[in-house]
Amino acid sequence: MRETIAEGFRLLQDDICGQLEAEDGSGRFKEDVWERPGGGGGRTRVIVDGAMIEKGGVNFSAVHGILSPTIQKALELPAPDFFATGVSIVIHPKSPHVPIIHMNVRYFEAGERWWFGGGIDLTPHYVVPEQARFFHERMKATCDHHNASYYPRFKLWADDYFYITHRKETRGVGGIFFDRLGPETAECKAVHRFVMDVGNTFAPTYRHLMGMDRHLPHTEAERQWQLLRRGRYVEFNLVYDRGTKFGLETDGRIESILMSLPALAAWEYDFRPAPGSREEETQSWLQKGVEWC
Amino acid sequence: MRETIAEGFRLLQDDICGQLEAEDGSGRFKEDVWERPGGGGGRTRVIVDGAMIEKGGVNFSAVHGILSPTIQKALELPAPDFFATGVSIVIHPKSPHVPIIHMNVRYFEAGERWWFGGGIDLTPHYVVPEQARFFHERMKATCDHHNASYYPRFKLWADDYFYITHRKETRGVGGIFFDRLGPETAECKAVHRFVMDVGNTFAPTYRHLMGMDRHLPHTEAERQWQLLRRGRYVEFNLVYDRGTKFGLETDGRIESILMSLPALAAWEYDFRPAPGSREEETQSWLQKGVEWC
Repeated sequence: MRETIAEGFRLLQDDICGQLEAEDGSGRFKEDVWERPGGGGGRTRVIVDGAMIEKGGVNFSAVHGILSPTIQKALELPAPDFFATGVSIVIHPKSPHVPIIHMNVRYFEAGERWWFGGGIDLTPHYVVPEQARFFHERMKATCDHHNASYYPRFKLWADDYFYITHRKETRGVGGIFFDRLGPETAECKAVHRFVMDVGNTFAPTYRHLMGMDRHLPHTEAERQWQLLRRGRYVEFNLVYDRGTKFGLETDGRIESILMSLPALAAWEYDFRPAPGSREEETQSWLQKGVEWC
Repeated sequence: MRETIAEGFRLLQDDICGQLEAEDGSGRFKEDVWERPGGGGGRTRVIVDGAMIEKGGVNFSAVHGILSPTIQKALELPAPDFFATGVSIVIHPKSPHVPIIHMNVRYFEAGERWWFGGGIDLTPHYVVPEQARFFHERMKATCDHHNASYYPRFKLWADDYFYITHRKETRGVGGIFFDRLGPETAECKAVHRFVMDVGNTFAPTYRHLMGMDRHLPHTEAERQWQLLRRGRYVEFNLVYDRGTKFGLETDGRIESILMSLPALAAWEYDFRPAPGSREEETQSWLQKGVEWC
C-alpha cells in the first residue's frame, strides 16, 4: 500500500507542476532530488519569477525512520517508527489580485496505525466574495462526492486550523482541512480515493482563480498591502503550521520546508487600512465561520 | 523596589530614544502608550524611515497579573502572580553595512521570587571582524566592571540562545545574554546596577557602530543579501525568541511584540553565496564559539 500511495503522490506532483507551468506561461520548475539521512527522500520543485507566479513550491516526499521519544510525544504519535509521504504546495503569485494558495495531501504510518491528512486553503490578498465562493464550491463538490459530512466538518476544521491566534484573524478565506483520517473514517482505499480527489481538484481550481483577475493592474499601495499579507503568512507558517513544526523538529530538509515562505514580505508597525477601503473590507472577512456556500 | 526599577527603565528608554534620534539625524520616534487589560501597560516607541534607521523600536513596559496554570508551567514560573518590567530594542538600519542590534533588560517577579534578565546581541549583514571585536570588547568591559565571570558566562549563553537550530547557524556575532539572575547571583541592588550598566552601554556602543560604515555605498545584490539576513532574523524571532513567545502566550500587545520584525525581508530557495564572496565569509562566521576578545 505504501508504495502505491507514494507513487500516486509522485504522479500528482508531476501533473500539478505541468498544469501550473501551462497556466503561468513562462515559469519553469527547477527540481532538487534529495535523500533524508534517517531514511527516504523527496523531490522539491520550485518555480521562481514566472509570468504570474513570483515564488512557488510543489514538493513530494516519502520519508521513514525512528523518532526520539521526545519528538514522538510532541507529535502525539502512537509509535516511534514512522512512514510519511505527501505533496505540499504553496504558490505566491506576483499580482495582489491573485490569491495565495496552499495544498497538502499526506499519508502517515506510525507502528501499526495509518491515516491520511491534508487540505487546501486560499489566502487572497484582497478578498473577492465571488472568488471565495467559487473556491469553496469546488471544495464542497469534491467532498460531497465522497461523504456529505466531509465539507461541513473539514471547512470548520480549516477555519480553526488556519487561524492566526495572536492576530485574531484567519489566514485567508479558509477551505478544507482534515487529519488522522484512519480506519474509523473508512477503509484505506476509500480514504485514499478521497485524498487523491482533493489533490486532483487543486490544479483546475487554482488555474481558474489565476485566470480571474490576472490582467487587473495594481498600484504601489496594493503591492505593499500584498507584502503585509505575506508577512501574516510568514507568521502563521513559522508560529503555528504543524507541517513546518514537524519538519523543523525531525530535522527535515530545511529548504524544502521553508519553500512556503514568500520571496518578499513586509511588516509595518500598527498598520491600519483606511476606513471604507478594500483593505479594510478584506480584514473584515478574515474571521471564522463565514459560510461561502 | 519595583517602582524604582521600572522608573529606571523608563528613563533608560528616554535616554536611548534621544541618542538614537541624534545619531540618525532625521528620524523621530512615534510613541504609543497602552494599557494591558490584565494589569499594567507600556510605552511603545517606533522609528520608521529615518536617515539611517529603516525601522526600529524601543519599548518600555511594566505589566502584572495572574497567569493560567498552563502558561505558568510553559514559562516555568514558580508562581502564577507576576510582575515584569523591561526595555526591549531592535533596530533595523537601512544600510547593509550597518548591523542590526537587539537589546533587552528586564526585571521579573513571580510570587516571592525576583530575578533580572537581558542581553545585547549584534547581527551584522556583513560580518566585519573589527566591528564584532569592538562590540564584544564593549560588552566585556561592562561585565568586567561587575564580575570577571560574567562576560565568559554570558557570552557563551548568547551563543547558545541566539542560535537558529534549523539553519545550524547563529543569528549574528552574538554578544551577552543572561536570565534568572536572582538572589543566588548577588543582592538585588547589585544585579540592578549591572543590568542598568548593560542598558546604558547600548546607546554609545551602537552609535559608534552606526558611524563606522554609514557612508559606504551598496549594490542591489548587497541589499538583497540584507533582506535575506533579515529573513533569518524573522525566523529566529518567530520560532525561538522567548520574549516573543512570552508575549504571544500571555496575549500581549501584538504590535509591540512584533515591532522587532523588519520593514522588508526576503527568502530565496536554497540561496548559496558565491565562493570567496563576502556573503560566504559572513556565513562562515555564523557559528558558536568564536572568541572576539
